[in-house]
Amino acid sequence: MRILLRNAHILTMDDQYTEYPDGYLLTDGDRIVSLGEGKPSFTADETIDCQGGILLPGFVNVHCHASMVPFRTMGDDCPDRLRRFLFPLENEAMTGELVYLGALFGIAEMLLAGVTTFVDMYYFEEQVARACLEAGMRGYLGETVISQATPDSPVENGGLQLVEEMLKTYPHHDLIRPVVAPHGTTTVSEDTLRACGDLAQKYGAMLTLHVSEMDYEMQYFAERGQTPIQYLDGLGLCNERLLAAHCIHATAEDIALLKLRNARVAHCIGSNTKAGKGVAPIREIAAAGIPYGLGTDGPSSGNTLSLFDQMRLFAVCHKTKNHNRALFPAREIVRAATRGGAEALGAGSEFGMLLPGMKADLTVVSLDKPHLFPVFNPYSTLVYGANASDVSMVMTGGVIRVKDGQLTGLDINRLRHELAGVMGPFRRAATRYADVI
Amino acid sequence: MRILLRNAHILTMDDQYTEYPDGYLLTDGDRIVSLGEGKPSFTADETIDCQGGILLPGFVNVHCHASMVPFRTMGDDCPDRLRRFLFPLENEAMTGELVYLGALFGIAEMLLAGVTTFVDMYYFEEQVARACLEAGMRGYLGETVISQATPDSPVENGGLQLVEEMLKTYPHHDLIRPVVAPHGTTTVSEDTLRACGDLAQKYGAMLTLHVSEMDYEMQYFAERGQTPIQYLDGLGLCNERLLAAHCIHATAEDIALLKLRNARVAHCIGSNTKAGKGVAPIREIAAAGIPYGLGTDGPSSGNTLSLFDQMRLFAVCHKTKNHNRALFPAREIVRAATRGGAEALGAGSEFGMLLPGMKADLTVVSLDKPHLFPVFNPYSTLVYGANASDVSMVMTGGVIRVKDGQLTGLDINRLRHELAGVMGPFRRAATRYADVI
Repeated sequence: MRILLRNAHILTMDDQYTEYPDGYLLTDGDRIVSLGEGKPSFTADETIDCQGGILLPGFVNVHCHASMVPFRTMGDDCPDRLRRFLFPLENEAMTGELVYLGALFGIAEMLLAGVTTFVDMYYFEEQVARACLEAGMRGYLGETVISQATPDSPVENGGLQLVEEMLKTYPHHDLIRPVVAPHGTTTVSEDTLRACGDLAQKYGAMLTLHVSEMDYEMQYFAERGQTPIQYLDGLGLCNERLLAAHCIHATAEDIALLKLRNARVAHCIGSNTKAGKGVAPIREIAAAGIPYGLGTDGPSSGNTLSLFDQMRLFAVCHKTKNHNRALFPAREIVRAATRGGAEALGAGSEFGMLLPGMKADLTVVSLDKPHLFPVFNPYSTLVYGANASDVSMVMTGGVIRVKDGQLTGLDINRLRHELAGVMGPFRRAATRYADVI
Repeated sequence: MRILLRNAHILTMDDQYTEYPDGYLLTDGDRIVSLGEGKPSFTADETIDCQGGILLPGFVNVHCHASMVPFRTMGDDCPDRLRRFLFPLENEAMTGELVYLGALFGIAEMLLAGVTTFVDMYYFEEQVARACLEAGMRGYLGETVISQATPDSPVENGGLQLVEEMLKTYPHHDLIRPVVAPHGTTTVSEDTLRACGDLAQKYGAMLTLHVSEMDYEMQYFAERGQTPIQYLDGLGLCNERLLAAHCIHATAEDIALLKLRNARVAHCIGSNTKAGKGVAPIREIAAAGIPYGLGTDGPSSGNTLSLFDQMRLFAVCHKTKNHNRALFPAREIVRAATRGGAEALGAGSEFGMLLPGMKADLTVVSLDKPHLFPVFNPYSTLVYGANASDVSMVMTGGVIRVKDGQLTGLDINRLRHELAGVMGPFRRAATRYADVI
């Protein structure tokens, strides 16, 4: 199957930020085979007129808990919500079916927002894999390992076994890539963190966890004379397989250590700042040459699963923190949301750029809406103006998943109806926390 | 003409934040006459099913330069852009026709985003009035007074005469309310600032200007041992007619002074932070009880003209600045974007709430899109999730301006075509600044 996209303003996101303002791109199977400027003479099985829209690599969402859709807008402004209602409510009411439908809904929402790859951390993660396969989404999927009982394990650290099962089930899958996901530095025992590191090494898998995020986490380690990142390093977890999520409070020494160990960072500006936690030192992380991508966090934390929102929040927060308008010009932010994410997953040669031989994971942003006129700088348009509703076409692995702004393979209204239908017990359980939500 | 809106989740934004989750609202002429819960027995000339969407007061955009649409995405990340290319390019290429079409386009964009009132400051402001009348938008319109030549005046301070003409032309107009708009504290001479104050007093008009915004402004006044706000007070401009835009660097003494003089604040979080300028002390301004509203600033500075974007940026910036997730819960932010704006204009008894007797200026947000499901807290939905594309219906003065997400009285595609058509000389002039844009 060869698909030709024409009449697009192509942003390749290569080293030179090469653009084709009146560009075409040809796919064959799951790969990009050709792209350039003007009118090509190729024949294709299907030709799509992008109507002058911006064609760029699909967004890479490097930190998410997609199945948490049912929690959205619950206690958004409540301090310490993780312990006050999120953990308890999850254990009371989260089921495999709810995880599956929540994930499928979240994935549908991401595809509609131009996201073509995401990193997930949750429970019943095999249900998230099922949803990815159904939707055609590329997922780096991490069953949570945590030293307490969970919705899918009555015993603490039960996730360890579930992770290994997923690693065995999907050893070399194109879409599903299991990752080892210990919850965080204070919620998983030292022994279990070591076991997670061993698993990641044994299977050559990525390891991702929440780190340097919480005030109480920082205090806990400060009392022990170290940082959470130094602690992880002591356990042998700081290495090229580590995707460290958040890193809000990373010190200069932490950053040097992450760089030394070839670790990567998942930056969640929206959820970090909505929670008032702080702005991670991304200027310094970028200057050190550490690969980093942008994450929406879960719909309970970041609310939307759109990288457009993350890009705009990224721009304003880092420019303001550093009192420097010129810092992170728009194109660097688009890079972080696409190629940067791919690099943070060690997949920079697979996707994240539009080049021949790369996966055909891509997004077209329509310029029809008034807030996107005029376009002197397409990167500015994407960072400061566009939102998920402007996405018109999305492809993962050469297959069209969104066309004319609509999902091709899923019925979002039916899906919402189904999800709402299984949310009854969850809603009832939630009423116990009415004072904080 | 009586219009009945039914099947809406109504947020009245009154003192108790009264909601009608299955509400109706009846308008008669330009006013709201009744609202409540359930199914009313009224008859109406037109009945609209809001399909469970959120019905709230129209957004009030308290600081804008709507006609600057042609500048959008030009040099977004360029430091000192005001002097490096904005002022020169305006003087070279801004014409009355471009102002008119830019304003009409910007107003169309605002209506589509649920904005029903805006404050403008620009040149050829009578053309902005013409656009407001054509679109049915409520505009507080300020011809810029500045001590330099402008696109519409070859002599400095020429705006003074133009302002007075507008004040005489629209003494008691329902939609068009002229305001006195000296540009800023360092760009207008002391005598002219006094003359502006006199004009505002003579005509009982509001006075708005950029203040405590720029680093060079702060330095200029610091060298003279005062703050810009103290300087304005010395000129007699700090009073109940003052709408002080930006106030990024307002001190505790400035805030006390603004409160003492019953002045108001226009907060432009998006443009301030995109420029890396800083986050205004709104926690302190709110605590002092100073009326404040949210402004998008112009499309060159804030890029979108959507208060949804401002609300989300407001949330993350102020929670982070104060390291406090609970600060400014979502409903207070929705209040700032609606009722707060009306209060900042001294119009809190006219619009900004949904109550019988208030102007029928209102907005319906559709919950159809996946990023808005579920809704445990409708204020959270608006602040953390929704965007301009979710607006389905908008009314100003009892007249439907947007229906099913489309403008009823304007053709946006034709308008873009016309605007693009007259932008030729502007585009050519812009090429002279290619090195910075």
